[in-house]
Amino acid sequence: MFSYLKRILIGKPLKTLEEGGQALTKFRALALLSSDALSSVAYGTEEILSVLVVLSAAATWYSLPIAAIVLALLFAIGVSYRQIINAYPSGGGAYAVASTNWGTSAGLVAGGSLLVDYMLTVAVSVTSGTEAITSAIPSLINYQVPIAILIVLGIMALNLRGLRESASFLTIPVYFFIIMITGMVAFGFFNIITGRAVYHAATAVGTAVPGMTFVLFMRALSSGSSSLTGVEAISNAVPNFRKPKRRNAAMTLTIMALILGVFFAGITVLAYYGGIVPSAKQTVLSQIGVSVFGHGILYYMLQLSTALILAVAANTGFSAFPMLAYNLAKDKFMPHAYMDRGDRLGYSNGIISLAAGAIVLILIFHGKTSLLIPLYAIGVFVPFTLSQSGMIVHWMRERGRGWLLKSSANFLGAFLSFVLVLCLLFLHFGNVWPYFIVMPVILRMFYKIRQHYNAVADQLRLVEKGKVKLHEYDGSTVIVLVSNVTQVTSGAINYARSIGDYVIAMHVSFDSDPEKEHKTAIEFKAEYPDVRFVDIHSSYRSITNPTIRFCDVIAKRAAERNYTTTVLVPQFVPRRPWQNILHNQTALRLRASLNSRENIIVSTYNYHLK
Amino acid sequence: MFSYLKRILIGKPLKTLEEGGQALTKFRALALLSSDALSSVAYGTEEILSVLVVLSAAATWYSLPIAAIVLALLFAIGVSYRQIINAYPSGGGAYAVASTNWGTSAGLVAGGSLLVDYMLTVAVSVTSGTEAITSAIPSLINYQVPIAILIVLGIMALNLRGLRESASFLTIPVYFFIIMITGMVAFGFFNIITGRAVYHAATAVGTAVPGMTFVLFMRALSSGSSSLTGVEAISNAVPNFRKPKRRNAAMTLTIMALILGVFFAGITVLAYYGGIVPSAKQTVLSQIGVSVFGHGILYYMLQLSTALILAVAANTGFSAFPMLAYNLAKDKFMPHAYMDRGDRLGYSNGIISLAAGAIVLILIFHGKTSLLIPLYAIGVFVPFTLSQSGMIVHWMRERGRGWLLKSSANFLGAFLSFVLVLCLLFLHFGNVWPYFIVMPVILRMFYKIRQHYNAVADQLRLVEKGKVKLHEYDGSTVIVLVSNVTQVTSGAINYARSIGDYVIAMHVSFDSDPEKEHKTAIEFKAEYPDVRFVDIHSSYRSITNPTIRFCDVIAKRAAERNYTTTVLVPQFVPRRPWQNILHNQTALRLRASLNSRENIIVSTYNYHLK
Repeated sequence: MFSYLKRILIGKPLKTLEEGGQALTKFRALALLSSDALSSVAYGTEEILSVLVVLSAAATWYSLPIAAIVLALLFAIGVSYRQIINAYPSGGGAYAVASTNWGTSAGLVAGGSLLVDYMLTVAVSVTSGTEAITSAIPSLINYQVPIAILIVLGIMALNLRGLRESASFLTIPVYFFIIMITGMVAFGFFNIITGRAVYHAATAVGTAVPGMTFVLFMRALSSGSSSLTGVEAISNAVPNFRKPKRRNAAMTLTIMALILGVFFAGITVLAYYGGIVPSAKQTVLSQIGVSVFGHGILYYMLQLSTALILAVAANTGFSAFPMLAYNLAKDKFMPHAYMDRGDRLGYSNGIISLAAGAIVLILIFHGKTSLLIPLYAIGVFVPFTLSQSGMIVHWMRERGRGWLLKSSANFLGAFLSFVLVLCLLFLHFGNVWPYFIVMPVILRMFYKIRQHYNAVADQLRLVEKGKVKLHEYDGSTVIVLVSNVTQVTSGAINYARSIGDYVIAMHVSFDSDPEKEHKTAIEFKAEYPDVRFVDIHSSYRSITNPTIRFCDVIAKRAAERNYTTTVLVPQFVPRRPWQNILHNQTALRLRASLNSRENIIVSTYNYHLK
Repeated sequence: MFSYLKRILIGKPLKTLEEGGQALTKFRALALLSSDALSSVAYGTEEILSVLVVLSAAATWYSLPIAAIVLALLFAIGVSYRQIINAYPSGGGAYAVASTNWGTSAGLVAGGSLLVDYMLTVAVSVTSGTEAITSAIPSLINYQVPIAILIVLGIMALNLRGLRESASFLTIPVYFFIIMITGMVAFGFFNIITGRAVYHAATAVGTAVPGMTFVLFMRALSSGSSSLTGVEAISNAVPNFRKPKRRNAAMTLTIMALILGVFFAGITVLAYYGGIVPSAKQTVLSQIGVSVFGHGILYYMLQLSTALILAVAANTGFSAFPMLAYNLAKDKFMPHAYMDRGDRLGYSNGIISLAAGAIVLILIFHGKTSLLIPLYAIGVFVPFTLSQSGMIVHWMRERGRGWLLKSSANFLGAFLSFVLVLCLLFLHFGNVWPYFIVMPVILRMFYKIRQHYNAVADQLRLVEKGKVKLHEYDGSTVIVLVSNVTQVTSGAINYARSIGDYVIAMHVSFDSDPEKEHKTAIEFKAEYPDVRFVDIHSSYRSITNPTIRFCDVIAKRAAERNYTTTVLVPQFVPRRPWQNILHNQTALRLRASLNSRENIIVSTYNYHLK
């Protein structure tokens, strides 16, 4: 039943060799890996305007120079990442680059930042997508949080079905969005040129705005830098590309950066020209859509495409997070469980962890995109800085042809990212402080896990390879726990006799009524006269303690005789899972306690209920 | 470590025979069992006024005749319950009385209602106590829900420590409250008599109020009946009393009813005289306190004592719920786990379930007392009706001395309770409808559980008592699951050889690299040349399916040779619990799957990490 359900939800299992077939063409990769970056135009301009409008509507003209700087940043970071793709075709992105060039700690800072950041990618994209929906359908505005959570769960289910299948499914919304935004920007500019759009800008470019400061400018710029999030996704996923992997990946990155730049610039200009300011009820993009298309079908298609690409953007996190977790687990910094591949070759544990983390973030920040953005941005630009600066070290070590040019491109990227980190840190501290609590915790966790795995490996290693001497025991003692005399008892005793040379049945009685107390003992002796039976009285109504004390004594005696000790715990296997709460509570507790004993093996005798 | 913590939190375990020492004196019983009823004066008057003030402030004089009717109800129900104490000294209350006299279904309706109702007792008392706190300290008003949840958890911890200890601890707040309310009522009346208190009543008694209807009057009356909740607690706990149990219980009930009547009447009159109407920010009792004591130390002591007695009232649920759950479990209507007594003779499972239920209710109703009250009242009066009417049947069967008088007293109680149930049903349907969804679900659950336990008992019964023939197996096959070659492997194989006549080691490999794939096999054969080893290749990266398929084949062959089959799953026992997430995920999944196999015994070889 469960496996049937799983088959429906997740699809049929794939053989290991089918993995090659999962490789991505440029067309598919653009959909799957660029959606995060492209979709950030849905909130990038809005974040800039939100900061500026706090001063006054007049200050909004500054969004134009800020957008220009963001575009310059995009160019610098794009060039840097092209170089990373060529230098590290095995993927792993910031984590791999930073740990190779700066050492383990820097790599872990990058890796830890990104782990949290992929959760934020999912949370930000989904909440922003939800806002696109509620802008179009205002009556849903009070249900933002549940809508966002449902979307996360839906994307998780898709990802548990596997990467390629998701990709073919997801190309449509991405290209739909590209068409809609291209149409909107083109039509918007057409309206401006033909004079059909009315000039509503609050002030002309260059107007002096009282109260405008450099700090405010940088605050707006650092908020606007959220448009650059997601640019790294392609460089992390190079191994997923079809061959020639590097060339295809680099080409995809360039196409993506071009589209992103045009969209971001177009939207910012249209917002300025139309005098649009952020509102709590409607996103900036939705307002532009209304001003360009009116309230017709095209507007609703725009909102739909925005919501859809943001859902796909959330998917970027789902393809990147499990891979990063796999790399960290391979280096023993995260639990081995992240290395298990699920039936569909996705990394199920990573996918589920990511969805859970994103849902927690959505709940904490009440599904508000603007509250999530600064934390998201710092989590992106810290690894940006580390990987870009790591590349400088890389070029300096290699000193290949043109290393000076290459490293200066990366220097520009690293420098700009670092400045943005500082801006976010000083100008948005109220929103980014959790980063400085979460990161040390994650780093400590990484080291603790590594330390533990290393200690275990040391302990487990065979002392002298090739010279293991097996120990020969002389026999085995089996203790059968008996709660009452039923068919289960017979089965358990039969089995115990097949494996044991010495079988004891044990019962704990604690009824205060002496007559009832020995009922089980009398019944047992009547049914199985030739099985040794021990009845233990418990004054404290506890079954666990007397059982453990008895088993310890028996185990000690057995060890003296060179016998092993097995405790056989009978347990019911009901036909329906809910029935488990009606049984086995005591067996569960007993097994948990007995597992702590070094010389005792705990065995479960399952009795299947009809 | 864990058991040490448990010892600190719960105290040392008590022997079964110490249970006698838990018996309650009248003084202690009044504190432990009357707090629910007494504390309801904290919200009873307020509930009446809340209904009336919806019409107009002028309508509030009707609170006086309504209070008079509530007092009459209190008298009738008190007399009825004295009779129940005498007739059913074994406790169990409404469940026992209704099932004995009306049959199982009625008993289960009463039992089910009460189970939910004890959760509501806890929820209502704690939220009302929280409102007493926020009335005194208005800055806490936004933290009502977390405060309430913390209080529930605190009371739960106290109850896990055991009944008697709680009682000695809890007498203080109850008597503190009795003193404070007595003082407030006395001082309030002294002020009225001496003319120091100003007459503020909205209208004189008897003024005609336009719009006042019989329906509104009954709505207010049924809300006010919430003052009567908790009266049944004493009759359910007769076995907890010191001998002579019945006399002591009946006497305690009378004292409690007297105090409750005086308090309720006094508070209602003071509220009327002072022209007090309910407010969202301050409870009625708090407003009376301010008008009598001013904003001095006495007022804060009043609020403190109110909050404390309401916390103690929540405790009533904690002493009654586990006992009811125990009785239901004994009759096989609830899981056996509710029959386990914890170390301190409390019924830990019941205590924890109750706290969880109350917290869910607080969260659902946002910690608002007035939203919880109607549901609470219907849950109280349904079992009241069933047990009182059941007593009529009881007297008619017995036809002892004075049976007619006795049954007419119970008839009055049953009739009034039934009228209140109808009023609540028709006049507060918007708040009580969940009762009609929850009750059928609970009833169905009761029957399902009973049916399951009976079916299991039938299946387990030894076919012919005294003639059990044990089966003699010819030997045992043991399959050792091997993931890699370490010290764990050696230990597991040694153990397997001690219990098995035929030992096979099994490994699942799925590395796509053929060289790595056979690494484990080669290593194993080098170390243990004389152990049979099977290497299974999995094309789907799944370990579970190939393992199960292999074990099934071996088990079938073993059965043909009259052998048993054991699968030995090695598992790490780390020194710290958190380290479990770093290990054993695969072992866990394998064991869960293997448990579904009828002919396979699953055994765990524990390797203790240092």
